[in-house]
Amino acid sequence: MPKIVDHEKRRKQIAEATWRVILNLGMEGATVRNIAKEAGLSLGALRHYFSTQDELLVYAMDLVKEQATVRINEITKKDLPPKEMILSILLQMVPINEETMAEMEVWFAFIAHARHKEDIFNIKDDGVFNGIKKLVDSMEQYGLLRKELDIAVETERLYALIDGIALHALLEPKRVDKERIVRVLERHLDSICIG
Amino acid sequence: MPKIVDHEKRRKQIAEATWRVILNLGMEGATVRNIAKEAGLSLGALRHYFSTQDELLVYAMDLVKEQATVRINEITKKDLPPKEMILSILLQMVPINEETMAEMEVWFAFIAHARHKEDIFNIKDDGVFNGIKKLVDSMEQYGLLRKELDIAVETERLYALIDGIALHALLEPKRVDKERIVRVLERHLDSICIG
Repeated sequence: MPKIVDHEKRRKQIAEATWRVILNLGMEGATVRNIAKEAGLSLGALRHYFSTQDELLVYAMDLVKEQATVRINEITKKDLPPKEMILSILLQMVPINEETMAEMEVWFAFIAHARHKEDIFNIKDDGVFNGIKKLVDSMEQYGLLRKELDIAVETERLYALIDGIALHALLEPKRVDKERIVRVLERHLDSICIG
Repeated sequence: MPKIVDHEKRRKQIAEATWRVILNLGMEGATVRNIAKEAGLSLGALRHYFSTQDELLVYAMDLVKEQATVRINEITKKDLPPKEMILSILLQMVPINEETMAEMEVWFAFIAHARHKEDIFNIKDDGVFNGIKKLVDSMEQYGLLRKELDIAVETERLYALIDGIALHALLEPKRVDKERIVRVLERHLDSICIG
């Protein structure tokens, strides 16, 4: 019987190998050769799954978005008090554990790499802005927000706060640890929410 | 009479050539060869001023910090109402014109490049955290802040907001333009200041 390999599963394994290479060596080390080695594949086998390095990088980045989306959808199914749910959702977008730290590292390296290749990569759409926008909109719908707020300004402000603190947690994980992130986000939510 | 070249002035010119290369080609293009070409120098002449690429990059990055510091010191000498002065200072740290956009681009490329070379680069100290800390401390000293605030949390929050919106202005300059940045920062200052 021939060996049956699930094509999509193998692509995921390769994407995960790509992350490990980026985590260890940075984007400069994320060559097709290094990724194939990390994934335990020949160059030819790797090319069977991804014909170019850019195609692989886009896929690896999409997987980051997908994972965060899955976690957030799980949270929305829980029966949590509104403010606690909002905080839990926001915490999926910042590095507070090994998994989210790795995602952030990959995201940062990817953005820097893709910056001057806008024809290949659509770096504007990382999903975070739309996620925050939906969140603020539903906070308003459920009557959680203070009355005098400008929704567009609050969306932009929360989006900047989240990406800023995510960046600082990546660059200075000792000072900007989970406890500190939670305190800052709680303070921010208190300042825009009723009660 | 021999040609006299001001050593420090030439180093600055090379750093500026480095920025132009980073702006056009990204950090991947910031090779010693490309920088020498942009600066109109031979490789040998470039090596006379900077013996390694890393030495040059550190110098180019320090110049970004220095320029921002000079601008901020100029502002503090002006006779401005306190909140206006604070806003003007914060606006020196985000991309709102060609000069600050170039600084941010260089900063971002540099951080991404230096991330996995911590032995060579001290990326933690870009001066922004300390600048924000001083600013919040003096806001407290001058009695501008609301009474119930936790200064450490407010410092971290403002720092995240500034770097987050700076990043978004770099990646999405159309949506996050100067007017929008000013609105977000004014809203934030109003929320932490008295009156």
